[in-house]
Amino acid sequence: MEYSEIQTPALIADLSVIEHNMRKFQGYADQNGCALRPHIKTHKIPRLARLQIEYGAVGLTCAKLGEAEVMADHGFDDIFMAYPVIGEQKVERFLDLSERIRMICGVDSMEGASAISQAAQRRGITAEVRLEIDTGAHRTGVIRSEAVELGKRIAALPHINLSGIFTYKAMIYQEKPTLDPKAAGREEGELLVETAQALREAGVPIRDVSAGSTPTAPYVAAVEGVTEIRPGTYVFQDAQRIVQQAASAQECCGVIKVTVVSTPEKNRAVIDAGTKVLAGDSKLHAEPMYLNGYGRIVGRDDLILERMNEEHGMIICDGETGLHVGQVLSIIPNHICTCVNLLNEIYIRERDGSYTRTPVVARGRSV
Amino acid sequence: MEYSEIQTPALIADLSVIEHNMRKFQGYADQNGCALRPHIKTHKIPRLARLQIEYGAVGLTCAKLGEAEVMADHGFDDIFMAYPVIGEQKVERFLDLSERIRMICGVDSMEGASAISQAAQRRGITAEVRLEIDTGAHRTGVIRSEAVELGKRIAALPHINLSGIFTYKAMIYQEKPTLDPKAAGREEGELLVETAQALREAGVPIRDVSAGSTPTAPYVAAVEGVTEIRPGTYVFQDAQRIVQQAASAQECCGVIKVTVVSTPEKNRAVIDAGTKVLAGDSKLHAEPMYLNGYGRIVGRDDLILERMNEEHGMIICDGETGLHVGQVLSIIPNHICTCVNLLNEIYIRERDGSYTRTPVVARGRSV
Repeated sequence: MEYSEIQTPALIADLSVIEHNMRKFQGYADQNGCALRPHIKTHKIPRLARLQIEYGAVGLTCAKLGEAEVMADHGFDDIFMAYPVIGEQKVERFLDLSERIRMICGVDSMEGASAISQAAQRRGITAEVRLEIDTGAHRTGVIRSEAVELGKRIAALPHINLSGIFTYKAMIYQEKPTLDPKAAGREEGELLVETAQALREAGVPIRDVSAGSTPTAPYVAAVEGVTEIRPGTYVFQDAQRIVQQAASAQECCGVIKVTVVSTPEKNRAVIDAGTKVLAGDSKLHAEPMYLNGYGRIVGRDDLILERMNEEHGMIICDGETGLHVGQVLSIIPNHICTCVNLLNEIYIRERDGSYTRTPVVARGRSV
Repeated sequence: MEYSEIQTPALIADLSVIEHNMRKFQGYADQNGCALRPHIKTHKIPRLARLQIEYGAVGLTCAKLGEAEVMADHGFDDIFMAYPVIGEQKVERFLDLSERIRMICGVDSMEGASAISQAAQRRGITAEVRLEIDTGAHRTGVIRSEAVELGKRIAALPHINLSGIFTYKAMIYQEKPTLDPKAAGREEGELLVETAQALREAGVPIRDVSAGSTPTAPYVAAVEGVTEIRPGTYVFQDAQRIVQQAASAQECCGVIKVTVVSTPEKNRAVIDAGTKVLAGDSKLHAEPMYLNGYGRIVGRDDLILERMNEEHGMIICDGETGLHVGQVLSIIPNHICTCVNLLNEIYIRERDGSYTRTPVVARGRSV
């Protein structure tokens, strides 16, 4: 289809830039002899996951069993769910996947690991798990002082293969917020490698050491002992990543096509995208991020997307906006992951300039 | 199905409370000889829209053509899209609906109204529109000092039936934020009735005068001259509405069932719902709202849902949480509308205590 046929609001992603981003991040991995296991939470689209594998990714990362099930149904055979599997039904779904493909999940508690061990024993199979380590994000993940003890106990469970450890730290959770991705990445990698070493010294044979998100991955990959990076956002990039020095504006290839629906005053206009398209979390972590507004209006740095309601985006500027009703704009979202997560489909701009309506197949598979 | 069969995270809504809420708000309309035209953006579910009509609603309100199309396909025949219809393709879709059902849309500019007029003329039909008035929200809507002039010009367009005016003000946009819904509602209604009167005096025969959202609707309905209220959130209610004195905790019947997936420290736990389920806009307007955290944990006022990532919700408390891995909690979201908007399905608790998986049919119809 043609650009003009795409009704707004709609997310449009340029394939040639997606491929540039994929090559670049595969390069960070390859140059360091490290594996890339991209997180598909950003795009949730089998076609793009397939492309990531073609560029050299060893497998996929997912956040939810529902996402992993979709990807397994689409032929992917090596998936790490970087999240704890908790609850009887979910353990069974995880083991169902484990019988079909190489499936790994995160663990950070004895309760979680024991339930998997017992259920795997009933099936007579071995479940592969990685221990999550908290390197500063303070969400899931065992705190480092308890990691060796927990690792030993989990490794000793029957029908469990504790093959690695992993972490998520990124930049926003520094004890002191930093805009230095290099320092953040090095710290993330070094803390995890230290923990792997401590586990090995305690007799737990840790093989896979996995860390790194889009801003930190290039520097995490360079830390000796890190075996795998798991960035997600790099495929599309976004305005937060520009601030984090992880992307240029040209690399932000997932843009929202919107229409100006109202220009009630000369210094004020309204677009047809609000929190139900641009996602309301985009300023959640704004303070250390120096984000100005809820997205960047391409080619119009003088305009600020100041407020959003569910279906309204309010643009202001110091002087006159010069915008007219019906005018089409492109917006680089602050956070592309939660943006894609709102949409049933995106539009991919092909190399020949045409546009392909592409369903976000694993969208809403949040269970 | 049974409660225990519903895997988390999931939104569960109790039908008997939904019906209580519907009766209550229909009552506000009926007592004042006012019509109720509920906004279905909150639930996006034909079954609940049908129930609203059965309780006495005159028709539905939608925000998007996609939502209106879904509802028309499900047999609803009187829909107001409280949003401007901008762009050639959308005007045609609006007129397609106008040929099937009573379809009304919002207008707030000559550009928008003229395009509809011309397209309606080509079809030889008349399009019904309402002029949106800005009573303080400063989003779409003509500013009041220009309303009469614009109303006269739109009413004079061929093939246009300007049957009414409408506004959205709510409470969060007061020039001075207030937690007095009564004063806010009265102001909203009075400003709109004044504008209707000014238009009538200028020769524009305004019939429908429509205003009122969940917090303000009970008081807007009582203003002489208001003919219709359009609340949406009242069906499920939420934590923001408790703060706005528009709901009791018992009336908040859309709760998120979640599971504790990690308890890394005694004063900290992680649940399997983050911004991709609980919606990240829930603290956007937090300052005047006095919201503590990203949702209310039912029965545990000592716990605070302090932070969210995409799939992680971080709970803290002053002492020990007492939570254990695998424990199930219920959370009243701060903003239920953007929460439902993330989910492919919700679960309705029927009067017999069973649960029905219910697709959010118009979800993602954001175009």
